[in-house]
Amino acid sequence: MTEGIKIATIGGGSSYTPELVEGFIKRYDELPVRELWLVDIEEGKEKMEIVGNLAKRMVQKAGLPIDIHLTLDRREALKGADFVTTQFRVGLLDARAKDERIPLKYGVLGQETNGPGGLFKGLRTIPVILDICRDMEELCPDAWLINFTNPAGMVTEAVLRYANIKKVVGLCNVPIGIEMGVAKLLDVDHSRIRIDFAGLNHMVYGLDVYLDGVSVKDKVIEMITDPNNSSFVKNIEGLGWEPSFVKALGVLTCPYHMYYYKSREMVEKDLKKAKEEGTRAEVVQRLEKELFELYKDPNLDIKPPQLEERGGAYYSDAAVRLIHSIYTDRRDIQPVNTMNRGAIASIPDDSAVEVSCVITKDGPKPIAMGDLPVPVRGLVQQIKSFERVAAEAAVTGDYDLTVLAMTINPLSPSDTIAKQIVDDMLEAHKEHLPQFFNEVQA
Amino acid sequence: MTEGIKIATIGGGSSYTPELVEGFIKRYDELPVRELWLVDIEEGKEKMEIVGNLAKRMVQKAGLPIDIHLTLDRREALKGADFVTTQFRVGLLDARAKDERIPLKYGVLGQETNGPGGLFKGLRTIPVILDICRDMEELCPDAWLINFTNPAGMVTEAVLRYANIKKVVGLCNVPIGIEMGVAKLLDVDHSRIRIDFAGLNHMVYGLDVYLDGVSVKDKVIEMITDPNNSSFVKNIEGLGWEPSFVKALGVLTCPYHMYYYKSREMVEKDLKKAKEEGTRAEVVQRLEKELFELYKDPNLDIKPPQLEERGGAYYSDAAVRLIHSIYTDRRDIQPVNTMNRGAIASIPDDSAVEVSCVITKDGPKPIAMGDLPVPVRGLVQQIKSFERVAAEAAVTGDYDLTVLAMTINPLSPSDTIAKQIVDDMLEAHKEHLPQFFNEVQA
Amino acid sequence: MTEGIKIATIGGGSSYTPELVEGFIKRYDELPVRELWLVDIEEGKEKMEIVGNLAKRMVQKAGLPIDIHLTLDRREALKGADFVTTQFRVGLLDARAKDERIPLKYGVLGQETNGPGGLFKGLRTIPVILDICRDMEELCPDAWLINFTNPAGMVTEAVLRYANIKKVVGLCNVPIGIEMGVAKLLDVDHSRIRIDFAGLNHMVYGLDVYLDGVSVKDKVIEMITDPNNSSFVKNIEGLGWEPSFVKALGVLTCPYHMYYYKSREMVEKDLKKAKEEGTRAEVVQRLEKELFELYKDPNLDIKPPQLEERGGAYYSDAAVRLIHSIYTDRRDIQPVNTMNRGAIASIPDDSAVEVSCVITKDGPKPIAMGDLPVPVRGLVQQIKSFERVAAEAAVTGDYDLTVLAMTINPLSPSDTIAKQIVDDMLEAHKEHLPQFFNEVQA
Amino acid sequence: MTEGIKIATIGGGSSYTPELVEGFIKRYDELPVRELWLVDIEEGKEKMEIVGNLAKRMVQKAGLPIDIHLTLDRREALKGADFVTTQFRVGLLDARAKDERIPLKYGVLGQETNGPGGLFKGLRTIPVILDICRDMEELCPDAWLINFTNPAGMVTEAVLRYANIKKVVGLCNVPIGIEMGVAKLLDVDHSRIRIDFAGLNHMVYGLDVYLDGVSVKDKVIEMITDPNNSSFVKNIEGLGWEPSFVKALGVLTCPYHMYYYKSREMVEKDLKKAKEEGTRAEVVQRLEKELFELYKDPNLDIKPPQLEERGGAYYSDAAVRLIHSIYTDRRDIQPVNTMNRGAIASIPDDSAVEVSCVITKDGPKPIAMGDLPVPVRGLVQQIKSFERVAAEAAVTGDYDLTVLAMTINPLSPSDTIAKQIVDDMLEAHKEHLPQFFNEVQA
Ligand SMILES: [Mn+2]
Ligand SMILES: [Mn+2]
Ligand SMILES: [Mn+2]
Ligand SMILES: [Mn+2]
Repeated sequence: MTEGIKIATIGGGSSYTPELVEGFIKRYDELPVRELWLVDIEEGKEKMEIVGNLAKRMVQKAGLPIDIHLTLDRREALKGADFVTTQFRVGLLDARAKDERIPLKYGVLGQETNGPGGLFKGLRTIPVILDICRDMEELCPDAWLINFTNPAGMVTEAVLRYANIKKVVGLCNVPIGIEMGVAKLLDVDHSRIRIDFAGLNHMVYGLDVYLDGVSVKDKVIEMITDPNNSSFVKNIEGLGWEPSFVKALGVLTCPYHMYYYKSREMVEKDLKKAKEEGTRAEVVQRLEKELFELYKDPNLDIKPPQLEERGGAYYSDAAVRLIHSIYTDRRDIQPVNTMNRGAIASIPDDSAVEVSCVITKDGPKPIAMGDLPVPVRGLVQQIKSFERVAAEAAVTGDYDLTVLAMTINPLSPSDTIAKQIVDDMLEAHKEHLPQFFNEVQA
Repeated sequence: MTEGIKIATIGGGSSYTPELVEGFIKRYDELPVRELWLVDIEEGKEKMEIVGNLAKRMVQKAGLPIDIHLTLDRREALKGADFVTTQFRVGLLDARAKDERIPLKYGVLGQETNGPGGLFKGLRTIPVILDICRDMEELCPDAWLINFTNPAGMVTEAVLRYANIKKVVGLCNVPIGIEMGVAKLLDVDHSRIRIDFAGLNHMVYGLDVYLDGVSVKDKVIEMITDPNNSSFVKNIEGLGWEPSFVKALGVLTCPYHMYYYKSREMVEKDLKKAKEEGTRAEVVQRLEKELFELYKDPNLDIKPPQLEERGGAYYSDAAVRLIHSIYTDRRDIQPVNTMNRGAIASIPDDSAVEVSCVITKDGPKPIAMGDLPVPVRGLVQQIKSFERVAAEAAVTGDYDLTVLAMTINPLSPSDTIAKQIVDDMLEAHKEHLPQFFNEVQA
Repeated sequence: MTEGIKIATIGGGSSYTPELVEGFIKRYDELPVRELWLVDIEEGKEKMEIVGNLAKRMVQKAGLPIDIHLTLDRREALKGADFVTTQFRVGLLDARAKDERIPLKYGVLGQETNGPGGLFKGLRTIPVILDICRDMEELCPDAWLINFTNPAGMVTEAVLRYANIKKVVGLCNVPIGIEMGVAKLLDVDHSRIRIDFAGLNHMVYGLDVYLDGVSVKDKVIEMITDPNNSSFVKNIEGLGWEPSFVKALGVLTCPYHMYYYKSREMVEKDLKKAKEEGTRAEVVQRLEKELFELYKDPNLDIKPPQLEERGGAYYSDAAVRLIHSIYTDRRDIQPVNTMNRGAIASIPDDSAVEVSCVITKDGPKPIAMGDLPVPVRGLVQQIKSFERVAAEAAVTGDYDLTVLAMTINPLSPSDTIAKQIVDDMLEAHKEHLPQFFNEVQA
Repeated sequence: MTEGIKIATIGGGSSYTPELVEGFIKRYDELPVRELWLVDIEEGKEKMEIVGNLAKRMVQKAGLPIDIHLTLDRREALKGADFVTTQFRVGLLDARAKDERIPLKYGVLGQETNGPGGLFKGLRTIPVILDICRDMEELCPDAWLINFTNPAGMVTEAVLRYANIKKVVGLCNVPIGIEMGVAKLLDVDHSRIRIDFAGLNHMVYGLDVYLDGVSVKDKVIEMITDPNNSSFVKNIEGLGWEPSFVKALGVLTCPYHMYYYKSREMVEKDLKKAKEEGTRAEVVQRLEKELFELYKDPNLDIKPPQLEERGGAYYSDAAVRLIHSIYTDRRDIQPVNTMNRGAIASIPDDSAVEVSCVITKDGPKPIAMGDLPVPVRGLVQQIKSFERVAAEAAVTGDYDLTVLAMTINPLSPSDTIAKQIVDDMLEAHKEHLPQFFNEVQA
């Protein structure tokens, strides 16, 4: 890595980009980014230009010598990059809306990361990511791939298993969100809290919680189950858990666990929402439209506060914080998606896990967590099985594997309904799933 | 073990007893049983006498010197026994009917073995089994405990973890049923088929299938997915699987997998049945009534053919075959529930698994199966987590653990509904769950 | 496999061949061998003819329709074979003599299987075995390779790791010898004894010992440490162990353990023997000479009793017993070298181990043994490391790996002496190690 | 932990104490030690007073409010301590001299840590350490035990397995010495080097070496094997390795590996030294005498430079650095001895390993290293087996286990010689091994 860092951001037209830029500006002293290349595809060109111009104004305001490049030429952007961040969405939010709506037709949660929707998001995304990996091998073999694109766990698994580059990290804002929530609950500064995270992306547990190095896990669990804290808890935990369940579980859950430990209520909630306000994708589409209207304002030269409503808070912070730690060999502890190497028992050494890691210049080094607690082993293993079968289906375009992945997903009610959803989804996403329709194309 | 073998059968008033007796009679030459003690509790006395008298007539007809003893004194029966078989049902079929009906009220499968019903069956059964183990330690420390009582996996886990006797085997007729089904499908004699079974009780997979020592697994899977074999398949597999699912899964399933890979259809089916003909328990209650009417006939001196309709075929055969192999150090291969010892990766060495074993005089020796195939690891791990938490709940009478066990069961739709079912079930089964109501009683 | 079994024996000119033939004759009823192909190389032609003619006389005497073929054309012999047995010795006993003498020059044990000599035996043997495997892939892809050639553990490891055929078993007479020794010690018939064997070839332990299914391990260990049994013990155990050591070890050792747990005495003994009577290879050369003189006698039509003195008793029995069990799907328990598959913890699943297996028509199925006892884990792991590095050195012809393998062997006194021995041995065995001298040849 | 930190140093009369005091003085700003209690036994009183007075002068010179307490009352010192450091030597250097001389009589290395001498050092030390642990449980249950007393690996294993306190770390200066050596070799500042350490105490390997986050392992190995660097290498590596061995091994060794990979040369060297200048213990006795003469000088108020010749450089730094990182929750990476928790495959989760850890206020968190490289697995496993059997022998006073531990040590030439050494050593160390002589005492 040279003095002047080059970043390539695939999916640069994303509404998140201003957060990323803000993150680089804030940390410029220790992380001197010289070139930020925003890359997008033809369909995203307009959005990229809007957000790219905002980025330029932000940098100018900060008075920093960061060059912002906008391009449709991915290979040009990758050439000599030090870090590649991926935040693209194959098929845009329209595709996400289908991932959410189609399963709901069958009374099944879409859940665009570890659920039925996530399977198809993975099928669309993984081939593109592997393509980027092939380009990186050639154009920037020493660069780190920092992937935010969901399903981040499945994508990291696919890169570890099917790509030749080894420097990949999958990122999620969920763990940092839990740490912040706990800090707020205990009314202490975030820096005093440390959580031992272990599991998979969106299936991560807090095995222990430390305040100033002393375990406060039991206290936190006690507080979470206290109805007086319900408003807070709902904030980080969604609907609120049964106290008996949480106490006996004995570890902290993440918000996505709602889909698995409360699936019936979540289906009902999603069905209602889909009817009343649209699915999350549809809501976000409206939010994004408003955001891009804001971004167009030539007087705007900061990240607008409205972006926080978009969701995904801390994502930018998580990403830049990670790049910062790698670049400076900071050796702080961050929960990321990386190769297991024995950190979590019963998950293969060469599989992706989400786990607290020390971040060195050589990347994340996972902290050994030993066996997962008995009650959570099953679900973690089940999602790992799902991720692996799904990744293989994405790479091979194999129909049977796709039905299998859908069937073994814990949100699936049966093999037959799984097959019906797969058939519907394949048809709906046809243009973004060439690996399944090769023969037709040939 | 002495020349004359002593068997103690706890729950001797069961309608299955004639099968057991038939099994001992058939194998008398190599397995010279001299005393068969049928034990039951006060409530089962009448049935025990009916079935016991039939047993006596069967033995007399066979002209064999097997003494049949009927007793309510369990300790008397255990004294010096060589084998103890357990086939009792705490709370009788009435309790099973509740295990089935209460979850259905919430649109949840009862599934009296690995499901919500099975949890409560375990909570009622495990303390009694552990009590028997304590008696055995004292009265027949060298005896083998051959347990048929469901949930056989959870019960074996509980004995391995919480009892001092080590000689325990859990038995199920499912694997032998699959082998027979495959033999029929291939139209060959059962003896030519061998299946590598691995998993848990009622969650067991056939990892490979051999005909005369050559793998025919792919052929069998092909046949299973052929609609022309559907009538047969339905017989062993219930509703019939999606061909894509089965092919990609790549291993043989067991009938109980229907509950997990086809839960929605199974709920609907069970709801319909419960309405039209009653739950399985209620159907069996009627069947049993008829059976006991038959058994009363003083001219009956064989196992009546109507018993086969009762379900549970091959159970007797499985049990006596196992006792036979242990007694004669036969070293044949049988799938049973025993301590894992590394046979199945990712399941703790000291947990119970259902796996093909060589049966020696020193008991079953599991065959090392290595890693389970990726797609099945999750569900197996999930049921193992459920079994362990459930076993701990049974031993401790801990309410929170019970809610946890119910919630992590794959058939559970949410923590809240899990809690509701637990509350209903605890109330309904109160008299058989003293460990949960100690304080009330005190 | 067809009715008439075809056996190909590579190294057919071995003095052991009459035992093998006797074994086939004895078991002809259940194992109807029709063709036995003895294969050897030009240098072994004369011996093959002598032993082959004896074999023909033996078969004739037995009145059995077994055709004995003698050939130098290995491919002809392999074509359509059902079982391939390998008992050849690259470089003949002359090479073994060097394996023994050269290390002794440095005060180091030769030990032609797991020791420094064994390393070079492996380097010479593995390329030939892998060549045979390639031929088998093409000419008899369904055949089983039954390897007796030492170092049998390293050879099996190499086949599992570097060949494409999967049907390989490594055989040794050590475990069966221990069982027979124990039977004699207890003065009972061998059939009543069963030992749980686990470890590696020539590094195998008896984890438990059963007499009629009841553990008598402690009693056997007690007897072994009783000086009154010393003459017996010396017979199976060599010099006799310190009672304290054996009691605390808590498992049965094998005779080869003498080299590791008594290396100093063994070096002294070997040095003395080498001086007085020659190394074992030289003694065996004389014995073989005498044997072949006997074999030439046209009136001899049985295996001559003098063969037993040659050592290697039970080898033939072990081999034919194994072939018999595979052919008839006998499902008896035999200790053989096969893929671990989790049977022994801490050894990779895909490595070779020597372990009690059930022998089916689909080959050996290892019995899960769980963790090895603490005190023996280290030595087993060390030999496994040695075997793996050695196998890689054999395949690659890499000098550094060879020095590494020699250095990490537990009998090696230092890296520098290891290097000296390697240099001497490479020179001495040059003609049989083409993989190390390719450049010179080119 | 309160503002004012209390340290209790068991074996406070050690010649190392001035280094420790210097370390606390240097880091006072972030690590405000208020009380340092030096504890020793009656025999060490004089030395403790000499070194304690020097410590007082050092503190006074630094102008810091650190109270130095000298006491023979261990319980008084432990009361309310925040950190307990142990650097005592049961039987003093006289005992070490016996540990070294007795095995040499048999031509066997003494090696006072992982070797035969280390076994007896462990037998003497472990009961005292466990006694301290019992006191800590009562008097300072939240304190950390920082153990430097050798054999540090075996002692940590014993505490993890047999004590009730969980906060224990074993410390060694070997890894930090390797890092410093590599920095010097590459001529860069130590802070730019990071090594992934994994293994056991004095049996630790550098799996990878990073300069500014980029692996330079291959380059370092290349340099180590270059004869031009031999003077340096000898410095950190002793006699110098065979280049072929080191290259094929592929990881960095530690100086103690000389005893195992070069045992014959080391025996010869030690025998020669023992004759010419005395064993290491005897040399150190002379050095210590001179040191204490220096310490007595009332004008000396700094750590005298001659202490560095004593050996054990960086020990103090390592210890204070560790305490500093725990106290300040620094989260830097340090190699220490701690519970494995899956960091190193094939070593039980609950065993002690020496591994790179992140140091948090909650103690060291091991970094997951996955499988050790094939060639080093054996020796690591063998030493772990030795440590475990030795620790059990220390706790039980079992003679047979002691002979077993001695026999399975890789430096042992045979069970018989092992027994002879054990018998000699038991006699020689009788007064410090009450657990073996209880009956005599009673
Ligand atoms: Mn996320
Ligand atoms: Mn069953
Ligand atoms: Mn052998
Ligand atoms: Mn040290």
